[in-house]
Amino acid sequence: MAVLLLWPFHSPHFNSHTSIITQPLPSSSRSFSFGKRFSCSSSSTSMEHHESKFKEFPYASVPHRELMVELVSTMENRLGASLVPCTLPSHVQYFENESATAHASLYVRSGNSSSQVDFILGSWVHCNLPTGGALNITSLSAYLRPSTDAPNFLIEVIRSSPTTLILILDLPPRKDLVQHPDYLKTFYEETQLDKQRQLLEKLPEVKPYFSSSLYIRGLVSPSAILVSIETEPSQAIRIDEIIQDHISPVAKVMLDTWLDLCACTERRLTDDESTDLAKRDRIIKNKTIEIDLESSFPRLFGQEVANQVLGVLREIYNS
Amino acid sequence: MAVLLLWPFHSPHFNSHTSIITQPLPSSSRSFSFGKRFSCSSSSTSMEHHESKFKEFPYASVPHRELMVELVSTMENRLGASLVPCTLPSHVQYFENESATAHASLYVRSGNSSSQVDFILGSWVHCNLPTGGALNITSLSAYLRPSTDAPNFLIEVIRSSPTTLILILDLPPRKDLVQHPDYLKTFYEETQLDKQRQLLEKLPEVKPYFSSSLYIRGLVSPSAILVSIETEPSQAIRIDEIIQDHISPVAKVMLDTWLDLCACTERRLTDDESTDLAKRDRIIKNKTIEIDLESSFPRLFGQEVANQVLGVLREIYNS
Repeated sequence: MAVLLLWPFHSPHFNSHTSIITQPLPSSSRSFSFGKRFSCSSSSTSMEHHESKFKEFPYASVPHRELMVELVSTMENRLGASLVPCTLPSHVQYFENESATAHASLYVRSGNSSSQVDFILGSWVHCNLPTGGALNITSLSAYLRPSTDAPNFLIEVIRSSPTTLILILDLPPRKDLVQHPDYLKTFYEETQLDKQRQLLEKLPEVKPYFSSSLYIRGLVSPSAILVSIETEPSQAIRIDEIIQDHISPVAKVMLDTWLDLCACTERRLTDDESTDLAKRDRIIKNKTIEIDLESSFPRLFGQEVANQVLGVLREIYNS
Repeated sequence: MAVLLLWPFHSPHFNSHTSIITQPLPSSSRSFSFGKRFSCSSSSTSMEHHESKFKEFPYASVPHRELMVELVSTMENRLGASLVPCTLPSHVQYFENESATAHASLYVRSGNSSSQVDFILGSWVHCNLPTGGALNITSLSAYLRPSTDAPNFLIEVIRSSPTTLILILDLPPRKDLVQHPDYLKTFYEETQLDKQRQLLEKLPEVKPYFSSSLYIRGLVSPSAILVSIETEPSQAIRIDEIIQDHISPVAKVMLDTWLDLCACTERRLTDDESTDLAKRDRIIKNKTIEIDLESSFPRLFGQEVANQVLGVLREIYNS
């Protein structure tokens, strides 16, 4: 599921609303040099370089970067040694298209064999737009194993101009909530997660965001934060204020809730429950890769790079 | 499920947002005389009287009434002889509270033994508000049997003032869409139901509506229309224009889709699928009655009337 939400292709900027991605991407100059294309070698030096590059979020504004860095470090610090180091090949840790108008970084750390965490996945994407601007996306998601049925974690921040932001922030459920009202009660009602959504809803710049993908809308929880934020051109700085003063505290509460209640709490499941859960998790992952990445990824990064990255992501998602 | 959506208790006017229903209801004068309280006898004369009373929607504005009458007659005409006559006892077809400040009418027709329709359920509720105004709710829903897995139908129109309206209009899914992307494709993507939602979304008076019940939010489909509509006090007539020019055509398209694709199309299910479906349908119905009606109904109509009506509804929902 993370992949679908990770990449921009479900956003209005990448689908039927504006169809940016259906046009050939420009081969014009990049906004700044990002260094030469990395080779496929995966020496530890190269890996360290890419890991730190991921955490630099080089294209994000300061408040946007600080938010992402804090979320990644909070998650890593809390999960500690239960996460093994990132072993992605360097050409997946960082990649770009032939004309260097689109760049991306991926960061994956799997849980060790005794962890409830399957893997955490961070990313950023920067892409010049035909309109002259640039699209910047950052995301962090965490997937749990079928040893627990607790929800996953997801945040994605999409900026397609200095005055617009789309935020997707949720603990996506791993069970059908209609059939499992106790699950709804435990993870969503008793945690009062909807209050966090309501905090953002109060801001005049904030509107509900409807993904063009009905599958995405069905995947998220009833208290998911899916909002678009737009300010007047003269008030571009307001978006960064909103990130710092409103999105950051809400995201931290939701991550803390996930860490406390989902990642670090044991749930006793029967073998049948784990089997059903593994099946549902797998359907989501396969559907995710099918409906978004396989069609859009080649357009952004070219077929060769797309194949390489998609191959690695499929392995991670199906391991 | 219909019951939860049928009654106002999940709306902002009946829960934590405004808590109207947590206050004692006024025993002040009713807006007009509705005739004496009906007895429990269920003679055919009494039944016919109540049936027609249901279809009069006596408290609704003209466009609101015309919309409901057209939806009910379209559904009844199309389903024809597969529906048996309404056999509700008269004290459930119409009831009111002791002080006659709250009135309601229910209308249920079950499908005959060879029909895919379990039952259709219509209602209206009129209730004087402590603020001096009145709340008017009308609804129509249809439930299918586990011989098909096709979605149900639901419309609810809630008016708590001349300038506000809440609309809930959906084909609520009967399977977990995350696990059944083909089901999502058949009933929601290929039918392009979301275009109907988008038509209403374009109107400046229309805003997304978030039910305070997370269970409700989880029950509806990703293309569900959940909107609140509000106009300036000087433009109260605009709400009726919106009903006539925008809500009516959208509701008719959605009902036609439901009749064509859900009620009148056979779906071949395995025994296991039907068993799972029946289980899920039952959870929804029990949860529905538990979380809304059992707590709120007595406050609106008094314990005695509530018990009588709830008893009959439980029988219908569990038959």
